[in-house]
Amino acid sequence: MLNKNKVLEVLAQVNDPELHRSLTDLKMVRDVQVNKGSIEVTIALTMPNCPLKNQIESDVRAAITALPEVKEVVVHMTAMTNEERKALFGEQPEGAAAQYNRIQRVVAVMSGKGGVGKSLVTSLLATALARDSYQVGVLDADITGPSIPMLFGLRGPVEPGPVGIRPLQSESGVKVISMNFLLESEDQPVIWRGPLIGRAITQLWGDVMWGDLDYLLVDLPPGTSDASLTTMQSLPVNGIVMVTTPQGLASMIVRKAVHMAQMLQTPIVGVVENMAYFICPDTGKRHFIFGPSHTYEVMMTANAPLLAQLPIDHQVTALCDAGMVESVMLTEIPELLKAFIQAIPVKAHHPA
Amino acid sequence: MLNKNKVLEVLAQVNDPELHRSLTDLKMVRDVQVNKGSIEVTIALTMPNCPLKNQIESDVRAAITALPEVKEVVVHMTAMTNEERKALFGEQPEGAAAQYNRIQRVVAVMSGKGGVGKSLVTSLLATALARDSYQVGVLDADITGPSIPMLFGLRGPVEPGPVGIRPLQSESGVKVISMNFLLESEDQPVIWRGPLIGRAITQLWGDVMWGDLDYLLVDLPPGTSDASLTTMQSLPVNGIVMVTTPQGLASMIVRKAVHMAQMLQTPIVGVVENMAYFICPDTGKRHFIFGPSHTYEVMMTANAPLLAQLPIDHQVTALCDAGMVESVMLTEIPELLKAFIQAIPVKAHHPA
Repeated sequence: MLNKNKVLEVLAQVNDPELHRSLTDLKMVRDVQVNKGSIEVTIALTMPNCPLKNQIESDVRAAITALPEVKEVVVHMTAMTNEERKALFGEQPEGAAAQYNRIQRVVAVMSGKGGVGKSLVTSLLATALARDSYQVGVLDADITGPSIPMLFGLRGPVEPGPVGIRPLQSESGVKVISMNFLLESEDQPVIWRGPLIGRAITQLWGDVMWGDLDYLLVDLPPGTSDASLTTMQSLPVNGIVMVTTPQGLASMIVRKAVHMAQMLQTPIVGVVENMAYFICPDTGKRHFIFGPSHTYEVMMTANAPLLAQLPIDHQVTALCDAGMVESVMLTEIPELLKAFIQAIPVKAHHPA
Repeated sequence: MLNKNKVLEVLAQVNDPELHRSLTDLKMVRDVQVNKGSIEVTIALTMPNCPLKNQIESDVRAAITALPEVKEVVVHMTAMTNEERKALFGEQPEGAAAQYNRIQRVVAVMSGKGGVGKSLVTSLLATALARDSYQVGVLDADITGPSIPMLFGLRGPVEPGPVGIRPLQSESGVKVISMNFLLESEDQPVIWRGPLIGRAITQLWGDVMWGDLDYLLVDLPPGTSDASLTTMQSLPVNGIVMVTTPQGLASMIVRKAVHMAQMLQTPIVGVVENMAYFICPDTGKRHFIFGPSHTYEVMMTANAPLLAQLPIDHQVTALCDAGMVESVMLTEIPELLKAFIQAIPVKAHHPA
């Protein structure tokens, strides 16, 4: 017979999609009224602004509706108080959010050299993966010179989650976190010495509710110092995409980064050459502005395949400055996406 | 009457041009033979490979020749032993070389953003100043991603001086020091955390025999972390040249660097916009590849004048990759030089 316990039993099977624990376990079920075939339940969200509100509501409704004899389901949504949340999750030590995250592949986008287009490659890849229905996050590890927020047109502040903070979501559904979301203004400098830089990166990893991701792309700053070192030592990086430009000067510095990755035994899954050429809009001719390519030297040193060659395109620049990197159309992107997935496949891809 | 003491008296007036102390004081005068009008002296250089050998020899010869009754001067050159040098200079604490340096103006070339052309601007400025007969040094403060050595076509190792190490000299006479001169191979990575990066920079300042300089240009890496912080806090920086590109994205990050300089009360003497446009070699038309310029925002925030706008030129790239930055001809360089000297004049310019 339909009664309160039956309803609680099915709600014990419904998981919070972010915390991967059942609603009853999380003390989210606050009230159950059974009036013949009519059921009324009250669910307390862990946070009032929970972006998963609708999903939780429909999961609850579906579970109860599946019970025999149910004719009507009313779901009231409320939120926990700070005290209730604190009682549930405790004092939240550093990195507490990490235990709720399920991230299949962590891929660092690196170069060693500045200004070669690491953030552009990261953004294009993330967008292409998201459009191909992968769950994607971007961790902007460039603490002092973050480009990711402007490319995606995202601004802070970020919202707190039940544990840690929530990433922002881009239009195509990429979850994004950057130091700039935590600053008062985008041009405020972060004047920190290396140890704090490293600590910021482990926090953007462990204190962010990434949830379930197929790929987390980590956009590294230039250099082979704290940010790169902490990322390779403290994050479970599965592979590195190395970005370079045709210049011999870039190649020399990128090879430093390749050697660093090799010393820290982090595999390089592929190389992307950015700014390969400029197509003159008047003549259609390709101009190799940055000279004959030295990217082959990088590939040989890294023993890694070329994933793509991207041109300089002033429309790309314009879209980037306008926060519309997700609207960039380059004929090379499908090829880049395919090569990337082939180079570092996920164990199981569950299309959204 | 001409005798040994007369000769020693004039040698006490001859200074080592690098150490600014008299040859007698430095115990460099080893033997003086007076045979009527014929004088024979032996001078012990502080280092066997001393690049100032010829200058010292001719200074000694000139001083003795000026004495009355002198008909012939023979100068023998030898070098101190390690023990003699150690007895003279002591144990050489860190930064010992700095006391012998006389540097009029220290100017940091900064951006915050990577890959905008800081090293190119540094090299072009240094070369132009040297050709205009200024004494110029370049301290490459990009420890993990140094571009300066390749631009000038310079390779280590560096030679020790009597105290500290000697910078290398470029073709046009620029004194250059870079971390890459201290590495076994140019693509060896420097995987150091921030505190070591900062320490490396203070050593490239204090343990290098810069000698007399009108300008020392410090080429900073991207970011507002250790390298920039140590340079502004530990070196007597007189001013900053801020380098940017037209992109809004660059402007945002460069403004972070501007704010850092302002917080640390280091004046910004001017702004250089690099990659302003590309001239199509076929049509001669200017293509604003990186979009409409946002450099005005940087100038307003920095309250500093525009020193120059430099184009993208594939011949420049080719010369840079070939180690021939000193051969770069751009019509903008004379204007850049003039604006720079006007923005940060030296107290006294003694043309070489």
